[in-house]
Amino acid sequence: MGEDAGAVTASELREAWPALSTGERLEGFVLLDRRQAEDLFVSIPARDQSELLLAHPPEGRRLWLRLLAPDDIADVVQAAPAAEREGLLAQLDAPTRVEVSALLAYAEDVAGGLMSPRFARLRPGMTVEEALRYLRRQGQAQLETAPYLYVLDAGQVLQGVLSLRELFMAPPGRLVAEVMRRQLVTAPTDLDQEQLSLLFAQHDLLAIPVCDGGGRLQGVVTLDDIVDVVREEATEDIQKIGGTEALDQPYLSIPLLRMVKKRGGWLAALFLGEMLTATAMGHYEHEIARAVVLALFVPLIISSGGNSGSQATTLVIRALALRELRLVDWWRVARREVASGLLLGLTLGTIGLLRILIWQGLFHTYGQHYLVVGLTVAASLVGVVTFGSLTGAMLPFLLRKSGFDPASASAPFVATLVDVSGLIIYFSVASLILRGTLLP
Amino acid sequence: MGEDAGAVTASELREAWPALSTGERLEGFVLLDRRQAEDLFVSIPARDQSELLLAHPPEGRRLWLRLLAPDDIADVVQAAPAAEREGLLAQLDAPTRVEVSALLAYAEDVAGGLMSPRFARLRPGMTVEEALRYLRRQGQAQLETAPYLYVLDAGQVLQGVLSLRELFMAPPGRLVAEVMRRQLVTAPTDLDQEQLSLLFAQHDLLAIPVCDGGGRLQGVVTLDDIVDVVREEATEDIQKIGGTEALDQPYLSIPLLRMVKKRGGWLAALFLGEMLTATAMGHYEHEIARAVVLALFVPLIISSGGNSGSQATTLVIRALALRELRLVDWWRVARREVASGLLLGLTLGTIGLLRILIWQGLFHTYGQHYLVVGLTVAASLVGVVTFGSLTGAMLPFLLRKSGFDPASASAPFVATLVDVSGLIIYFSVASLILRGTLLP
Repeated sequence: MGEDAGAVTASELREAWPALSTGERLEGFVLLDRRQAEDLFVSIPARDQSELLLAHPPEGRRLWLRLLAPDDIADVVQAAPAAEREGLLAQLDAPTRVEVSALLAYAEDVAGGLMSPRFARLRPGMTVEEALRYLRRQGQAQLETAPYLYVLDAGQVLQGVLSLRELFMAPPGRLVAEVMRRQLVTAPTDLDQEQLSLLFAQHDLLAIPVCDGGGRLQGVVTLDDIVDVVREEATEDIQKIGGTEALDQPYLSIPLLRMVKKRGGWLAALFLGEMLTATAMGHYEHEIARAVVLALFVPLIISSGGNSGSQATTLVIRALALRELRLVDWWRVARREVASGLLLGLTLGTIGLLRILIWQGLFHTYGQHYLVVGLTVAASLVGVVTFGSLTGAMLPFLLRKSGFDPASASAPFVATLVDVSGLIIYFSVASLILRGTLLP
Repeated sequence: MGEDAGAVTASELREAWPALSTGERLEGFVLLDRRQAEDLFVSIPARDQSELLLAHPPEGRRLWLRLLAPDDIADVVQAAPAAEREGLLAQLDAPTRVEVSALLAYAEDVAGGLMSPRFARLRPGMTVEEALRYLRRQGQAQLETAPYLYVLDAGQVLQGVLSLRELFMAPPGRLVAEVMRRQLVTAPTDLDQEQLSLLFAQHDLLAIPVCDGGGRLQGVVTLDDIVDVVREEATEDIQKIGGTEALDQPYLSIPLLRMVKKRGGWLAALFLGEMLTATAMGHYEHEIARAVVLALFVPLIISSGGNSGSQATTLVIRALALRELRLVDWWRVARREVASGLLLGLTLGTIGLLRILIWQGLFHTYGQHYLVVGLTVAASLVGVVTFGSLTGAMLPFLLRKSGFDPASASAPFVATLVDVSGLIIYFSVASLILRGTLLP
């Protein structure tokens, strides 16, 4: 940016936005005209809205906040540092402040924290014509947010739902109660956002009403919030599968030390686990001293176990997240993985044996006992790959069963588990096959 | 299921659906009454719809197909085996068949393949009142699919857009051209679905019109299609990060041999790469023979490089997919990763050194040269972790730059790359530090 920032257009800024630093964003933002700035402001994530707002003097913040729906304001307040939150709430008019405060009582990642408290309400006893007239009188605000109209009784209990389109197409003299849909999909306020996104997927809906225990309508979650949820949950899963805590912030904007902390915890834990490989190798020190050729294949063997485990764990983690697998399926999965593991292990074992035979033919690398060495490597690969696939597939089930996130069965975690057992398999096979030739 | 299948309800079946086998699905489906069956049918994925349809005799398929919009029918036809496609198309009435055939001309994963060709059209010269009357006369069908109304001139060129709500709230005597929005976000028919989902995110829209080169409206993509796209793209990325080809089918329904093929390709490729570790270890055979203690730490060192590389690569792959990183950011990322790598390497190096000192104090495991061995391990860890982080972070950039999918820089791929270089770093550091003590 810098001197040529004057040339920036709203759409260029919007395009580049996720990758810009806070300074670059502010620089670009102040150059936009008011309408462009408003369009951009409402379309960026709550964290960025919060940053932009706090860069304005307190008296300039009210106008920007007013552009947002109460649920979006709640997100902005939640994204601001604790010390600034009261100040932001003070900028709101009284009714909005009540709505926003109610939303702030819910966790960010449950239905209550995602819902908008603004929706169009109808009474079941209105005629279609009265309802249309009533909506027109209410003006835009109530219709803006949710795609459906909600029919409530005097106690605010949800009776039915219909779209503006359905109301508009219905005979004017009929009662709302006669034309509304009574089969409702609703969510409790504390429903987890991942469950909620599956509810949307199962029923192909544009919005789901959120009710309290008494069936009273509290707010509405719309599909556009769910797209963000789906993206966010996938990001968390991907980061966990990569063996790090979820960053919860874009790569370039998270402070270096915080990122190192989020990565360092897992890395150190894995390192401590991996230390068992040194212990295991220590047990076989005499075998290695006698047959150094054995050591040469250690990385090849344990990494093959790690790779097959990493494949299995990511497939199962994703299938569990999409509900393609349930806990009760663990046995079916175990059988599949043993079968795939054996097939994959035989493939790698054959390649490994061929490699040793060819190298021996060309370079005489492996000494007179090359054939038994080759058989040891091949047999170990079958064992290690089968064990890796099975472990990688079962670990996410075990974590889910114990109440943890299956995605924590990251590729590096599984690889570490499989490394230690891979060594044991390899050296056990070796002492079995090589006894009398390379080993005593 | 089996004998107690009679107890199944529509919502139980819907809940369990993704995890059921084809047989279980059919068994449950035939027990539903017609309305429940229809509800379920329209809410399941195209692949499953296709399976259910083909389980019906040809003359029973027409009624089910009629429940679907043309874009959904196109998906069902695409999901069916090639030999069945013509037969399915023959079940459609002539105008629908024309629409579906037009859609089938587009790839599944571009805007043209996702759009629905049915949307409500208005003329700019209509008054608001005329437009409302026109829509009411048209009936439900046109309004059903897209949440906006599209204003086209006589040549089908898109002029503007407005929602039913906006039309409904506008003064009845005004012209549509006066109340419509003219600032349009449109997509070309060949826009990739991943780009399209980012366009939805950037502009916070419920639907995006798809136009040909001449600006003529061809169809409309709605947000509910995009939720599926976001989920599908995340699944593909997660599977690739785990080191397997994308399965494109649920875990339990993909035939075993096809899954083994998708996993075996990458596993064999990684195995061939990993063979270089045996070659590298072969180079250091004499050093290992002289100081077997060196071999004990090989798995620990190379796996630490692999783990840090796997963290870096997944973070960068996801940030690139979310457009939080652009290609030009590679240098900023490289500096960050060198800094994190050094910090993380120092942490692991310290833990590693302490471990060796403590074990030596307790069990005298590592002989008289334990201190130089410890320093070798610690120094190698700093090098290996820094190199791993940097390689893991740069590889996705390199792949994107060369036109490949960055997600192919899977955790196992990076681990394999880093294993070989980790060995070289370790043994180079060892021959530097241990010269004169353990090594000649």
